Amino acid sequence: MAKWSSQIRGEETWRDVMEWRARIYPDKLAVCSPGTSKQSTFKELNQRVNSLTNALIGLGVKKGDRVAVLATDIPEYIEIASTCKAGNVYVPLNWRLKGQELTYIINDSGANTVFVEEQFCDTIRSIHLQLPQVKHFICIDGSPEDMLSYNELIGSYPSDDPGVEVVENDILTLLYTSGTTGLPKGVIRKHRDTLSHLRMMNEDGRIRNDDRCLCMMPLFHAAMIHVNFAFIMWGATHWLIKKFDPEAIFELVQREKMTWLAGVPTMFISLTEHPSRTNYDLSSLRYIAYIGSPMPVEALRRAVDVFGPIFSQGYGLSENTGETLLTAEDHLIALKEPGKERILFSVGKPLLGCQMRLVDDNDNDVPLGGMGEIIFHSDHIIEGYWNKPEETEQALKNGWLHTGDIGKLDEDGYLYIVDRKKDLIISGGENISSKEVEDVIYAHPAVLECAVIGVPSERWGEEVKAIVALRKGMTATSEEIIDYCVEHLGGFKKPKSVEIRDELPKNPVGKIMKKELREKYWAAP
Amino acid sequence: MAKWSSQIRGEETWRDVMEWRARIYPDKLAVCSPGTSKQSTFKELNQRVNSLTNALIGLGVKKGDRVAVLATDIPEYIEIASTCKAGNVYVPLNWRLKGQELTYIINDSGANTVFVEEQFCDTIRSIHLQLPQVKHFICIDGSPEDMLSYNELIGSYPSDDPGVEVVENDILTLLYTSGTTGLPKGVIRKHRDTLSHLRMMNEDGRIRNDDRCLCMMPLFHAAMIHVNFAFIMWGATHWLIKKFDPEAIFELVQREKMTWLAGVPTMFISLTEHPSRTNYDLSSLRYIAYIGSPMPVEALRRAVDVFGPIFSQGYGLSENTGETLLTAEDHLIALKEPGKERILFSVGKPLLGCQMRLVDDNDNDVPLGGMGEIIFHSDHIIEGYWNKPEETEQALKNGWLHTGDIGKLDEDGYLYIVDRKKDLIISGGENISSKEVEDVIYAHPAVLECAVIGVPSERWGEEVKAIVALRKGMTATSEEIIDYCVEHLGGFKKPKSVEIRDELPKNPVGKIMKKELREKYWAAP
Repeated sequence: MAKWSSQIRGEETWRDVMEWRARIYPDKLAVCSPGTSKQSTFKELNQRVNSLTNALIGLGVKKGDRVAVLATDIPEYIEIASTCKAGNVYVPLNWRLKGQELTYIINDSGANTVFVEEQFCDTIRSIHLQLPQVKHFICIDGSPEDMLSYNELIGSYPSDDPGVEVVENDILTLLYTSGTTGLPKGVIRKHRDTLSHLRMMNEDGRIRNDDRCLCMMPLFHAAMIHVNFAFIMWGATHWLIKKFDPEAIFELVQREKMTWLAGVPTMFISLTEHPSRTNYDLSSLRYIAYIGSPMPVEALRRAVDVFGPIFSQGYGLSENTGETLLTAEDHLIALKEPGKERILFSVGKPLLGCQMRLVDDNDNDVPLGGMGEIIFHSDHIIEGYWNKPEETEQALKNGWLHTGDIGKLDEDGYLYIVDRKKDLIISGGENISSKEVEDVIYAHPAVLECAVIGVPSERWGEEVKAIVALRKGMTATSEEIIDYCVEHLGGFKKPKSVEIRDELPKNPVGKIMKKELREKYWAAP
Repeated sequence: MAKWSSQIRGEETWRDVMEWRARIYPDKLAVCSPGTSKQSTFKELNQRVNSLTNALIGLGVKKGDRVAVLATDIPEYIEIASTCKAGNVYVPLNWRLKGQELTYIINDSGANTVFVEEQFCDTIRSIHLQLPQVKHFICIDGSPEDMLSYNELIGSYPSDDPGVEVVENDILTLLYTSGTTGLPKGVIRKHRDTLSHLRMMNEDGRIRNDDRCLCMMPLFHAAMIHVNFAFIMWGATHWLIKKFDPEAIFELVQREKMTWLAGVPTMFISLTEHPSRTNYDLSSLRYIAYIGSPMPVEALRRAVDVFGPIFSQGYGLSENTGETLLTAEDHLIALKEPGKERILFSVGKPLLGCQMRLVDDNDNDVPLGGMGEIIFHSDHIIEGYWNKPEETEQALKNGWLHTGDIGKLDEDGYLYIVDRKKDLIISGGENISSKEVEDVIYAHPAVLECAVIGVPSERWGEEVKAIVALRKGMTATSEEIIDYCVEHLGGFKKPKSVEIRDELPKNPVGKIMKKELREKYWAAP
């Protein structure tokens, strides 16, 4: 038996999780890939990860070195990420990014190894001259002459734990934020904060060892270490799919008696409304987590009618993972008790050890019921950004994570996200949530996309402006949209002007770039 | 909102657990006491603990001060222990101990406050002159003139969190070992190692938020922070009983639809064999943990027939809590698969982050399949004993907890406890487990108690000796017992001599004092 750490107090890392599951569930399926022959038990997964790690060590990759991954949702992704058990730092790359953006992230992380799925090899070839510090390019599912072969590497190295000592303060991954402002920042996630988050995923039965799970978020997303790693930690079996296809998902749920799904609200709206839904037996589902935003109330009601009262959602950033949870029981209260429907717009209550405050610009607590920036202190917030001391200091002012989100609490202690701090509009001394105005405009049948921003006003300081793109073949005038807002909003919140455009500017992951929209109005004269 | 820690990384403590549960389950029952009107929801429990903590602060009790408790299993016990949320260190006292032993423990701990149930007030009065450092005697369930009243204190102080900053390395409790050798030692348990253990109690559904639980171990036992605290942490409701009475337990299980029981094997044997059992509906039970030792195979078979395949057991000491688990699934494999029955004699496999080795006297790993001292490295082993630097160094040699137990592993990775290290007999170069010989002798119908020890032998180094007490009205000679052993044991393991006595010497909690038995033979001439 290998001798591990010599310190008195043991520290749990991803290595412990992998070894434990291989020991307890050697023959249980850990990861499956429908439509392929690829599947691993917990023991096989650990063995493949050990072989891969030993191969990387053979190539000269040392503890703390960064290894980047450019791939879709394939089982090898889980294996590459899991080499963090020997202290490698994996860096997921969003395959929707362009060459220049990939170059920036790979170079900023200082990765010396890049894993590439064959379909992206040409993208990497097109930028490889700009990646001077990368020593190893490894093709995951092919054997091109100019790259190493993943399968040959795995087959050539022993499957014993490499015996690298890892502690809870070692870095596990760098998660690059998509960044609607400025350049992407590498969020440093360590073993300690990641495991602290993963433990929450087991609290009160969120993930159980008898679950059969599917997370429909791409693996380059933070959901990888927040959800897929949680499936492994809690001994559940999980499936990976390459794209969202409702019919294929129904088929999978029925065939594999799936119990657990996660995805964004639009996915569950599609599944609820899909005409083929009733052809399948979906009764095995016991838990659905929707991620990223609240669901429209009527859509949620229909989803609960169809799938049962099994929906939950939480709130967190890459910088702290989930801090709050709106449980299935909360959803039921909201749907059944008179006057409680508002709870559906909340993100729930803080989880174990999550301390939360709502503060003003000087970090003073706002009065109860007031709006303030949401700040957190907990065991799973990050300690910083990769090579960004100034941004780190700003985000972690006074030792609390400043989310940049504006929130408020109701009398029952539920948290509501009002807006991004930078998107809050202050007009005539009133705080106006751009998100609230956008929600109203989005409900207009002709509107495809919209962004609400504050623009300079001599009288009000700022005034509300909406920029709108219409659905194809639909029409609406600025006045009609303003009138529509007056019908549904307090008068001071209505846009003073509406600009109609063909489309709105977006970043590579599809988020609307409000910063760019604002610039034209706020540029120095 | 109070400002908590100013460090960047949050640390979870019992305070977080109490606050979290009060927030998530304000109206759910936390602790109940059958036959009394005493019950608290999670919010009420937290409020009462806050009032009690504020009262202690009012009396001048500061963070880090020790508060001792002498009481049976009453709800106030949970409240007193939970004042650790403000940094108090609670010291449970075994009410079976005599005045002199209580005096030693209270003084060794340096407690300045002693909580006493009324029935033990005279015991405390008889020793209070020997307790010069105790400033406050608090009677839990009465108002004697010479003590403070628990209920008056709780009623006189506000129920807000006192706002004392506690971190994971603060001490939570001192657990005094019963000690079959030497004086009791105070095992230092901190918030970090305790919470690390408590998290394990949730893994793979061991305790769920919909459980209704009863732990039949006394609250002065380590089970208090290992099991009762786990009920609170995982949002289950639990009941407290003052004594083990099978009929009352059946009645409680039926009435409250209990799901979860813990106790020692003899309790479950009594419940299984009790004639009234079939008068009750016990079908709500889903999990039974037996603690302290394996169960005889036939007794376990009958218990599984009666209660279902819901039994599990683990292995741990006060110094490390549970490190291994033999799951319900393991029990099923053992009972159903040919050749696997031996698994029932094991204590299972190590849990998450529990690193285990079997070593010789020089801490070298023994060959696979061999016997060795069981040593552990994990996040929930202690860092030491209270004011005992030498014993600490010995127990934590090379940073690993030395259990003093001899174990071996089978080919499937299950751990078997062979003996206490100090009880292992080395005769003619063979390791002989005293426990194995005792198990055989105990099976003899005339034997009430027995202890097997090694005594000096010129030829063998040590030789096996049994000391036996017989059942009333039964007879057996030494030769008959030796012959019985020859029938059931390898010849080299049989006792060379058997001494028959009226009774065996025991310590206050009823453990046989082998050390005293050995002394006569090993005393210097």
